[in-house]
Amino acid sequence: MAASAPYADLTEEQLRKELARLQAEYESFRVRDLSLNMARGKPSAAQLALSEPLLTIVKSNEDCFAADGTDCRNYGVLEGIPEARALMASLLDDEPENTIVFGNSSLTVMYDALARCLDFGCCGSIPWAYLESVKWLCPVPGYDRHFAVTETFGIKMIPVPLVDAVAADGTPLVGPDMDLVERLVAEDAAIKGIWCVPKYANPTGITYSDAVVRRLAAMECAAPDFRIFWDNAYCVHHLHDDPAEQDQLLDIAVACREAGTEDRYLKFASTSKITFPGAGISAFAASPANVADALAHVKNQMIGNDKLTQLRHVRFLKDASGVAAHMREHAAILRPKFDLVLDALQGGLGELAIASWTDPRGGYFISFEGMEGTARRIVSLAADAGVTMTGAGATWPYGDDPTDSNIRIAPTMPSLDELAIAMEVFVCCVKIASLEKLLEG
Amino acid sequence: MAASAPYADLTEEQLRKELARLQAEYESFRVRDLSLNMARGKPSAAQLALSEPLLTIVKSNEDCFAADGTDCRNYGVLEGIPEARALMASLLDDEPENTIVFGNSSLTVMYDALARCLDFGCCGSIPWAYLESVKWLCPVPGYDRHFAVTETFGIKMIPVPLVDAVAADGTPLVGPDMDLVERLVAEDAAIKGIWCVPKYANPTGITYSDAVVRRLAAMECAAPDFRIFWDNAYCVHHLHDDPAEQDQLLDIAVACREAGTEDRYLKFASTSKITFPGAGISAFAASPANVADALAHVKNQMIGNDKLTQLRHVRFLKDASGVAAHMREHAAILRPKFDLVLDALQGGLGELAIASWTDPRGGYFISFEGMEGTARRIVSLAADAGVTMTGAGATWPYGDDPTDSNIRIAPTMPSLDELAIAMEVFVCCVKIASLEKLLEG
Repeated sequence: MAASAPYADLTEEQLRKELARLQAEYESFRVRDLSLNMARGKPSAAQLALSEPLLTIVKSNEDCFAADGTDCRNYGVLEGIPEARALMASLLDDEPENTIVFGNSSLTVMYDALARCLDFGCCGSIPWAYLESVKWLCPVPGYDRHFAVTETFGIKMIPVPLVDAVAADGTPLVGPDMDLVERLVAEDAAIKGIWCVPKYANPTGITYSDAVVRRLAAMECAAPDFRIFWDNAYCVHHLHDDPAEQDQLLDIAVACREAGTEDRYLKFASTSKITFPGAGISAFAASPANVADALAHVKNQMIGNDKLTQLRHVRFLKDASGVAAHMREHAAILRPKFDLVLDALQGGLGELAIASWTDPRGGYFISFEGMEGTARRIVSLAADAGVTMTGAGATWPYGDDPTDSNIRIAPTMPSLDELAIAMEVFVCCVKIASLEKLLEG
Repeated sequence: MAASAPYADLTEEQLRKELARLQAEYESFRVRDLSLNMARGKPSAAQLALSEPLLTIVKSNEDCFAADGTDCRNYGVLEGIPEARALMASLLDDEPENTIVFGNSSLTVMYDALARCLDFGCCGSIPWAYLESVKWLCPVPGYDRHFAVTETFGIKMIPVPLVDAVAADGTPLVGPDMDLVERLVAEDAAIKGIWCVPKYANPTGITYSDAVVRRLAAMECAAPDFRIFWDNAYCVHHLHDDPAEQDQLLDIAVACREAGTEDRYLKFASTSKITFPGAGISAFAASPANVADALAHVKNQMIGNDKLTQLRHVRFLKDASGVAAHMREHAAILRPKFDLVLDALQGGLGELAIASWTDPRGGYFISFEGMEGTARRIVSLAADAGVTMTGAGATWPYGDDPTDSNIRIAPTMPSLDELAIAMEVFVCCVKIASLEKLLEG
């Protein structure tokens, strides 16, 4: 019978017995030749099917025109057609005139924005490529593809813990550890920016509290061209329909304008997890100075992005309320998957005091925190049993989780049946790795 | 009555009389409030209509899968789906495994390729951004958007004349002046590359002869990481159906492999002027080393390009022979436009000995060479009469045509009726500017 007391309370003999039992269970999974994947935040086929009308919503030659008469098949309109700018502005809590619509990937928009800082500087500052050292703050655990962008440009990444705290006066402080962030950016002019996934963060699911957003906007930065890369990837990705169960995020643009730092932020979003990840549209919003600075170089990089895809999205999603209605359909598919994962974790590990995990109200991930020194072992065990997890360490810059404890769980892609088995395997692997660690100590 | 003898043979009085007559004709155009555009190489509505089936060729959820089972709606497949790589490889005379499919713009692919050279170097060379000076060869007249890319990165552009000559042994030498190119690249290690539109060039319509391609491949370069940016934008854009009336281009990859310089070239192409300029696909082909080098960084910039658009293109165009059949439909629309422009130039200017122009067998442009010092005046006169031409100077780096004589004519976008009027205006403006120049001398 499975142990249901904290492992720490068990004798060595009990631990060994439990391990032997779990090893047998693990073998029973291995012989099943499973092939399950909880690695990437990919929408499932059922979610993709929700956007089928997008495929044929622009049907004929006569259909291909934007409201202002622009032929969306032909060249031009660098900023995006006006109705697409309005749609994407609604995702970014911004104005259409501050919003530029790009191609199918906000990751590309972020990479390109950073490349421009390096090649050309920001609004007249010296190109960062000319500087001896450029550093970047990386809230952890965070998004591996963000870290890959900064790493490829040789930018030194500094991890900053995400915290969920309360200030002395009772103000919630959810987000990067702002005491640390404020100290670092005030001291070191080589620190040029910070990655933020401010809402339903990847992988923790947290949403920055207003006080954190305001402190990011108001903090004194030694680098005058410090930039917050505000990746609002999960801006409308609630798991619940009731607004009381949805997180609200203070707009960084509002906070920066209030603080007199209106050029500090660059906002990014996309429809990747709204319609089709591979065939959606993305957008960038920023202050007028940043938008003008971007366009001055972007105009040499492209003539215009895919306006037919923009038009399809406008016709299909229409506006903010159309997006919200569509996202409720996604949520209906995703909620049971998140519930299943949380139930499996609670049922399998809840009494053992060897792990913790997040219970997000939106986004695509559950962040799992195991015992120190077990994450790589858990992921490796799971892989050998046919369950692919995001690589251990991926949530840290350079893939280096110093406590080897964090694992990102992505429950969206598998079916409920697959997820149930995958979570059985995962829980088994967590227990084995934890027991091994306890016995070795 | 209009003069039909060379202007140089006319007396000053005859020139003045002719000018007065033309000024009256010009006024008659001005009062018509025309709004005609021969500025950009944009396909016309009739051409865009040819690709209408592309809009709905992927219709349903079940339709969205590549031959290997890839769901084209979802994330992934950085290099492009295999069938799209094969299609684009056929445009680039290359192998699918050397071909990467990108988004809707080959201009973006070229900008990004150059940015990678600057940020990361080429196949292990020092990043060009670290060098004191980077220079680039620019065959002239050439493509303004190429020049804008090199200019935005601060690369010093060196114009090189395009020639149409014959070597002592009778070998045709069509393309950049290779004596000059060979001397420059051998001498100066700061010269890192050359822009080439090798087939039906923008704007001259010439196609590089085999000897020129071989010399580009074989020449000794002081810079070991010299790169030929081979923009084969008009690879299948013949104006005639008879193969005997179509230009043939020697593949730069073949020439480089023969010369032992297989990493020297980067090839680019797109479907912009095959299907929809704003919503097509583009591609890059290069040696295995260059492809690997590109992907090592591109993988941090994007997860994958729009695979639905790739799938649509494969289903619509199918293969090289499908492309050729489709291009014959374009040619049927374009031929009468090119003929009209050439007839108007010949009819209006043929006897006057004040201008020359190209008679291309493909591509999108006619290159017009007026008297020295007249191009800006012609374009300005035309603009005041409601006919927009490509800006004078645009075909030269920094917009600086030293003889102020070249104008790019883009006949594709207007209807035949519009084109007829626009050419009447243009011919009138050429005559006026030439007469003004002769009278001032």
